[in-house]
Amino acid sequence: MDYTIGKHQWAIAEGYIPSQSTGPEPDMTSHESACILNANNEDAEVKIHIYFDDKEPVGPYTIKVPAQRTLHLRFNDLKDPEPIPLDTDYASVFISNVAIIVQHTRLDSRQSENALLSTIAFPGNV
Amino acid sequence: MDYTIGKHQWAIAEGYIPSQSTGPEPDMTSHESACILNANNEDAEVKIHIYFDDKEPVGPYTIKVPAQRTLHLRFNDLKDPEPIPLDTDYASVFISNVAIIVQHTRLDSRQSENALLSTIAFPGNV
Amino acid sequence: MDYTIGKHQWAIAEGYIPSQSTGPEPDMTSHESACILNANNEDAEVKIHIYFDDKEPVGPYTIKVPAQRTLHLRFNDLKDPEPIPLDTDYASVFISNVAIIVQHTRLDSRQSENALLSTIAFPGNV
Amino acid sequence: MDYTIGKHQWAIAEGYIPSQSTGPEPDMTSHESACILNANNEDAEVKIHIYFDDKEPVGPYTIKVPAQRTLHLRFNDLKDPEPIPLDTDYASVFISNVAIIVQHTRLDSRQSENALLSTIAFPGNV
Repeated sequence: MDYTIGKHQWAIAEGYIPSQSTGPEPDMTSHESACILNANNEDAEVKIHIYFDDKEPVGPYTIKVPAQRTLHLRFNDLKDPEPIPLDTDYASVFISNVAIIVQHTRLDSRQSENALLSTIAFPGNV
Repeated sequence: MDYTIGKHQWAIAEGYIPSQSTGPEPDMTSHESACILNANNEDAEVKIHIYFDDKEPVGPYTIKVPAQRTLHLRFNDLKDPEPIPLDTDYASVFISNVAIIVQHTRLDSRQSENALLSTIAFPGNV
Repeated sequence: MDYTIGKHQWAIAEGYIPSQSTGPEPDMTSHESACILNANNEDAEVKIHIYFDDKEPVGPYTIKVPAQRTLHLRFNDLKDPEPIPLDTDYASVFISNVAIIVQHTRLDSRQSENALLSTIAFPGNV
Repeated sequence: MDYTIGKHQWAIAEGYIPSQSTGPEPDMTSHESACILNANNEDAEVKIHIYFDDKEPVGPYTIKVPAQRTLHLRFNDLKDPEPIPLDTDYASVFISNVAIIVQHTRLDSRQSENALLSTIAFPGNV
């Protein structure tokens, strides 16, 4: 199987990691995820740039998604060059060497019951 | 009516079936669904491949969606070649012989009130 | 202003109207909506076809969206040729004479706190 | 970095700002947001038109998104030419001088636990 479905560029305009959570960690920790699928036979190297509303973008964060694997990346786990600040609006752009699919999900457990959102990210032209 | 709206290839990068549920079964059982619409006059045969973060993909799972019918497929119900493990990140690719539409939905009832997410899946070029 | 943004064909693969609700009517009544925007200078006549998993499609339901207006249509309100049954999986296709935008939203108040989902519908090629 | 990912025209067919909220302000105030990312090296000037179901559209509201910044715009904050009425169905169209990405999010805290929805907005052809 070598499905080249996907795009090389993706963007997620929404981003916000609440500092507060309710419920058992780590499943119920408030988090934002970028679910990435690499259905190719070649490993993906993905460079992520994080944008803010009041300062210069940070990045690239470089991650690997092996061939024919998915990676459900928590933005909370990005550490290099620096962690993403909590309770702060941000956005992200993904640039991959091979075609991938990116979907955005947030679990928000600030109040006692969790809330979920998800959307396919915005694909670039290539 | 023969609406050829849709695509032959679709991908959902997010996938996670919680093992815990709250509320009456089966309506309130935590589940992930792929809602498929086949608006053609011809039956659809859809092959589904499931991707993981740490092992080879599994599939194809083969399902039928009759002409001019919808199928709201629970990933929990896929059994052949093997069930999808619970509490595990996965992703999915759909390949159909005719144009279909795929939409992704999750009901999460791990905490006492249910949470919902939904997004159109990512369509391929064909 | 005459923004021709939009498409003539749209599909929503997910559809399910819960029969149970919690909270004050009508705001908190469980419902599915198709939010339609007609940004043209010409009125839109939209024909909706509803698909099921075990019987022939029903339709068309014909609705009007005046020029430069939005209509947040509750599927619960479709009556002619027949109401959409509750607690039943369905899907929908929209065919418009002018370009429109369709977004899908569900409010689910079966449990004591409401849950929301939304996604842009799938646009056809025209 | 000069990523021209994005489009000049976007539409969000769903819009509704609940007048009721539960929980601490402003984080838990019910609101609708348009998350905008401008990944270009040039500032974006975005004109927003708001559509209703029973009256003429209002606008443009003009906002700036600096180069390489994101703006998570709350529709509640739009004041000029006039605030968007609460508890009212609306829709929106965004016209930008440079390519941007727009994502729609709602936090609904009318009941005691918050609910979230999000979807990528609908991109125009340009």
